[in-house]
Amino acid sequence: MKKSILLLLVMFSTLIFAQENKKLALTPPMGWNSWNKFGCNVDENMIKQMADAMVSSGMKDAGYEYIVIDDCWQVSRDSLGNIIADPERFPSGIKALAGYIHSKGLKFGIYSDAGTKTCQGRPGSRGYEYQDARTYATWGVDYLKYDWCNHSTQDAKASYSLMKDALVKSGRPIVFSICEWGTNKPWLWGKEAGGNLWRTTGDILNCWDCITDWGGMGWILILDKQNGLESYAGPGHWNDPDMLEVGNGGLNDTECCAHFSLWCLLAAPLMAGNDLRDISESTTEILTNKEVIAIDQDVLGKQGYKIKDDGDFEIWYKPLESDDIAICFLNRSKEPMDIDIDWETLDIKGKYKIRDLWKKKNTGTTNKNFKAEIEPHGVIFLRLIEED
Amino acid sequence: MKKSILLLLVMFSTLIFAQENKKLALTPPMGWNSWNKFGCNVDENMIKQMADAMVSSGMKDAGYEYIVIDDCWQVSRDSLGNIIADPERFPSGIKALAGYIHSKGLKFGIYSDAGTKTCQGRPGSRGYEYQDARTYATWGVDYLKYDWCNHSTQDAKASYSLMKDALVKSGRPIVFSICEWGTNKPWLWGKEAGGNLWRTTGDILNCWDCITDWGGMGWILILDKQNGLESYAGPGHWNDPDMLEVGNGGLNDTECCAHFSLWCLLAAPLMAGNDLRDISESTTEILTNKEVIAIDQDVLGKQGYKIKDDGDFEIWYKPLESDDIAICFLNRSKEPMDIDIDWETLDIKGKYKIRDLWKKKNTGTTNKNFKAEIEPHGVIFLRLIEED
Repeated sequence: MKKSILLLLVMFSTLIFAQENKKLALTPPMGWNSWNKFGCNVDENMIKQMADAMVSSGMKDAGYEYIVIDDCWQVSRDSLGNIIADPERFPSGIKALAGYIHSKGLKFGIYSDAGTKTCQGRPGSRGYEYQDARTYATWGVDYLKYDWCNHSTQDAKASYSLMKDALVKSGRPIVFSICEWGTNKPWLWGKEAGGNLWRTTGDILNCWDCITDWGGMGWILILDKQNGLESYAGPGHWNDPDMLEVGNGGLNDTECCAHFSLWCLLAAPLMAGNDLRDISESTTEILTNKEVIAIDQDVLGKQGYKIKDDGDFEIWYKPLESDDIAICFLNRSKEPMDIDIDWETLDIKGKYKIRDLWKKKNTGTTNKNFKAEIEPHGVIFLRLIEED
Repeated sequence: MKKSILLLLVMFSTLIFAQENKKLALTPPMGWNSWNKFGCNVDENMIKQMADAMVSSGMKDAGYEYIVIDDCWQVSRDSLGNIIADPERFPSGIKALAGYIHSKGLKFGIYSDAGTKTCQGRPGSRGYEYQDARTYATWGVDYLKYDWCNHSTQDAKASYSLMKDALVKSGRPIVFSICEWGTNKPWLWGKEAGGNLWRTTGDILNCWDCITDWGGMGWILILDKQNGLESYAGPGHWNDPDMLEVGNGGLNDTECCAHFSLWCLLAAPLMAGNDLRDISESTTEILTNKEVIAIDQDVLGKQGYKIKDDGDFEIWYKPLESDDIAICFLNRSKEPMDIDIDWETLDIKGKYKIRDLWKKKNTGTTNKNFKAEIEPHGVIFLRLIEED
């Protein structure tokens, strides 16, 4: 009798826990990650300052919650195989750092790699999956970005499923960010492997459309690779076009608006990658525009897609809750562009109020054509609000 | 200065250790494994008795050294992920058992699986590779048989390489037995993955030529799959046609002789699979025939191959040190067979003394035809000794 009560309790806790895991990342995760700005140059003071700045800049209020340390926090393993943080850069230890971040009402993320070594040659988790997941849980880790360097001939789905199993076994709900660069089409198996988000391409670069041999590219080239993937995203499992380059200097404010708008239209994870301690007013305005962020975080969880492509001019579309619609007009050219849109040609019938999300103004309805000028490399980002 | 001396010492020890690892299984491993006779029915008393019997039966003197527990010794993992032996069947623990086996001058082997679970549903090593290898080293394990059940979509070479890396990292020389059943042609990558031996087929069955849906088969069918693999075997890295069924009752003495002879001609690992505590005189004679074993253990490490196939009649050939040759005539039919062999038709020129390894007699030279009768399902196993 006692045994069966115990068994019921165990089953019940397992159920609760499974439910908790299912509740992870029901909207695209928002936060900050060290890589884009700092690369390997990470330490505990900088990370703590970033947590402070996330609060003081208003980003926390806007919905950002994860502070994620990318590669280079780890240096070795001890004789029992436990992963060891760099004692010079993280003298207080990762657990204390996680505690500090939690004390700010934020969540804490960390980085590892499915291979023998990380991309920067630090110890990877391969063959240590359960031990590392246990360590992360002990430290209070809430988010794991899991990279794909030095993976040998491993099968990607199996490797990521394994770490997911280890995270679940750890007993702590941990958002699982699959960083496999799109090579093995993770949108086809990422959800089954337990990923809450999965990268679809190589690394984003701090530019409009530059490109490198090793697969890095500007945000507009990444955007081009997202269309067609929309059916794979949804609450709890997102396509990840990589972190934001807003505020890192490679894009002007107009371009940053375009990049941020389209990431929101894609229901992309919004991981800021700039120095939050030294953030301009315009960057803050972009990153904390709540009406724009609301497009990203819409509870329907639909990833937007392109409905018109005229070369330099594109129209992107995202269904929202309450039958609202997000529309983004993108001018890829280096010249201003005049547009004159007949809504019916976009199959948008019925009457919607038009809200310009960057001007923060209502600008008429869909009863008549929409006429405007779009800046070079700019967007006009609208919410069409269904009238009752 | 002190630092560089320390560094030199570290490099030297690493070198010594790498050399030790390279010295593993320079001839095919010989020992005993619990699976063929006992399946899951293993416990520490039985294993200790088997070690005692290996000594008292003369098998140790004949070269057998590893006592290997196959599946079912393990039941769970503790909260730190450490693998736990069945406390009812192994109350003294695996380390004590290994100590007992070492005290008999023997070596100790254990079993795990590259997947999440073993073939019998016990905890596998996937994601625990380094931790398990460290545990094995602490226990004094000398040999690991590593199975392939429940491997999901893992890549075989990567999975086995991983456990090999973990074994090397453990700091203890441990023979690595890849048990992948031949599905992914392990002969093509087994050596590179660090395997000292690798299974080439499904499980051997206790019969002449029976076969099952799940890939099990009698020894003669396994033999048929070995020809052509000879180029992949050599000192330190062997094709493994699976363990012996000698003395398990499914083969008569003549058939056991044939099975054992051909395993030796193949330079196969010789892992007895019978109950050594209850071993007949004829089985002992087969398993401990030193002249036959010498063919298996020949230092050249050449795997033999078939040079004639007349359906029911086959001739197998193995080059030996000092230009000696092993020849095995196999009668697959159920009738006695008269043979009359002109050595020149086998491209065996020059004059050799002929040693019959089962009759333990010299029987002339290759100057004239070899005439004999082979029993049904029998062999004549000869060593041709080059005359100076």
